[in-house]
Amino acid sequence: VKGFDVTLVDGLLHPRTPLIADLLRGRRSIFVTTPTVARLYGGRLLGYAKSNGLDGSLMFLECSEANKDLDHAARVCEFALEHGCDRRAVLVGMGGGVCTDIVTVAASWIRRGIGHVRIPTTLVGQIDAGIGVKGAVNFRGKKSFLGCFHPPEAVVIDPGFLHSLPESQVRCGIAEMIKIALVRDEGLFGLVEEHGPRFVSSRFGRPPAEARNALWLSVVRMLEELQPNLYEDKTYKRPVDLGHTFSPLLEAASRFELAHGEAVAIDTALSAVISQMLGLLPGVQLERILSTISSVGLPIFSADLSVALCRTALEESARHRGGAPNLVLPLAVGQATFLERVADLPGPVLEAAIHRLARDSGRA
Amino acid sequence: VKGFDVTLVDGLLHPRTPLIADLLRGRRSIFVTTPTVARLYGGRLLGYAKSNGLDGSLMFLECSEANKDLDHAARVCEFALEHGCDRRAVLVGMGGGVCTDIVTVAASWIRRGIGHVRIPTTLVGQIDAGIGVKGAVNFRGKKSFLGCFHPPEAVVIDPGFLHSLPESQVRCGIAEMIKIALVRDEGLFGLVEEHGPRFVSSRFGRPPAEARNALWLSVVRMLEELQPNLYEDKTYKRPVDLGHTFSPLLEAASRFELAHGEAVAIDTALSAVISQMLGLLPGVQLERILSTISSVGLPIFSADLSVALCRTALEESARHRGGAPNLVLPLAVGQATFLERVADLPGPVLEAAIHRLARDSGRA
Repeated sequence: VKGFDVTLVDGLLHPRTPLIADLLRGRRSIFVTTPTVARLYGGRLLGYAKSNGLDGSLMFLECSEANKDLDHAARVCEFALEHGCDRRAVLVGMGGGVCTDIVTVAASWIRRGIGHVRIPTTLVGQIDAGIGVKGAVNFRGKKSFLGCFHPPEAVVIDPGFLHSLPESQVRCGIAEMIKIALVRDEGLFGLVEEHGPRFVSSRFGRPPAEARNALWLSVVRMLEELQPNLYEDKTYKRPVDLGHTFSPLLEAASRFELAHGEAVAIDTALSAVISQMLGLLPGVQLERILSTISSVGLPIFSADLSVALCRTALEESARHRGGAPNLVLPLAVGQATFLERVADLPGPVLEAAIHRLARDSGRA
Repeated sequence: VKGFDVTLVDGLLHPRTPLIADLLRGRRSIFVTTPTVARLYGGRLLGYAKSNGLDGSLMFLECSEANKDLDHAARVCEFALEHGCDRRAVLVGMGGGVCTDIVTVAASWIRRGIGHVRIPTTLVGQIDAGIGVKGAVNFRGKKSFLGCFHPPEAVVIDPGFLHSLPESQVRCGIAEMIKIALVRDEGLFGLVEEHGPRFVSSRFGRPPAEARNALWLSVVRMLEELQPNLYEDKTYKRPVDLGHTFSPLLEAASRFELAHGEAVAIDTALSAVISQMLGLLPGVQLERILSTISSVGLPIFSADLSVALCRTALEESARHRGGAPNLVLPLAVGQATFLERVADLPGPVLEAAIHRLARDSGRA
């Protein structure tokens, strides 16, 4: 099993920051980025490549959940082929989770696997989607049906990229931050609980120490969770799946009007309510969880959240995990367990949990 | 690194042969085969699946070098998705090297990698293309540009499939047999030298002991060669690349009228002549090699074999191997070395070697 470095750095694209240059020097480099990121940072990237004498080509890729597909991965492969990509070449994905996912997939295919570097520019990318060894594309309507395990040579996190994010995207990242905090780190949860709204409005610029700390703790806890089961061949019980049981179907049901992070927030809220109703999570803790989610402007309910959708999601989840849905249930802030059998969640409990969230969100 | 079993078995599709049934029982199985193989063995396969209570679906895939592409791999993925392929499902490729390559690639992509079993039905597949951990598809005219390292759960070799092969395909397999014999096993070479024409006409049915022995030695020597460098991350010096330096360009130049095995035979002959002219291979050994290749009806020359093509091939090869072409040169039957620098092969030697083969083949 190959390892990889995750590095937090300021001023990544400053010509004198050696990190990227040291990785890429002397190798054919293909930078893949989105039109938006290119507009904001393309000039600096080209300046960086030029002043460091890098042998790079820049490719733009329209990246959204709707075109995270085989065709877009193939476009990266085609660009790489046309630009003389040999076995030592490296793909550099600079963008959100969709961009780095497509780049990871393309890198895993080209010449049976070449190197890649991820420079996530969104909060979700920096603390969740962009770290780890996975890449995937959607296929014929099935989310992430095709993919790979392909460790990056490096993941480079520059919080400076967050400054240009819309608030909605910062919120979506915080949904993943809350998730990892809930299963692993009460201290991290406390930071979001106390400073969440300010993290959003300042794009993790303020309060400086707390924002920085929250970012880095999220990365470290995520890596600690992933590390023992990087290739997901050891166990289906992954605490980091909290918030990811109902959310895929929820996103699909909303025709992707609900952002991934919003769906994760709703799923996390539902899992917490279920846990409280099953007597696993104290009521006080549930209130902390729901109010923290709401405080940063994330939803806890959607009209698409139905008993039928949740049942289907649980059964689908169980089907892929040898019969156990492994729904992650918080026991307290910072600690979680698993629902091991679909039958352990009685229908009325699920229904009541959904009802409770509908009421809390003022929609019932 | 995961291991995998390669098993030689007779009567694989006999309802009472447990091998495949034991692997697939209780799992969703997708059998991928070619129209030709289906016509010859489809009925027996379905009977086997039925009498063993297997949960299988059968897909036909037109397989040729020209459609060993992304689109055909995607068709397998689509069929798998439509037929309820979960993470425990298994793809079974039953056909030639193109079929098992496409199946390996598809299996490596689906849900980030599901299991697959290879049942090679051609001689090339059984002793060369179908063993090992690699899969690949061609892309935008570039041979095997996209691919994977994805170990099969099992490779099952039933020599019975060879009975229905056209002679031309048996010959192509023997080109790979000669290759592995030349770099590793003088005894195996001796078997081909003595019985080659009969191996072809009897499809490795006669003489029974010698034919069986030649098949199994080819498999074992190939696996021994691959094993220490399965993922090709240890060294570029791979003796099994003998015959595979000039042949890719030669196949392309002939617009694939030259079969892969024919191109390999010509490349092997050229490498042997070069080696003799560089003083590395005794003349007597060269004669044995050339006459054995010719004796089974394989070519040692093609009108497309030019100095320019060979130069391009060497430079391309060097470019991908950190500057060294690593052209494999026989030192004797059963032993080989490498040309480490393009400059070590003087232009006049290459030209004279090509000329010699042209003359020997009666074309000059």
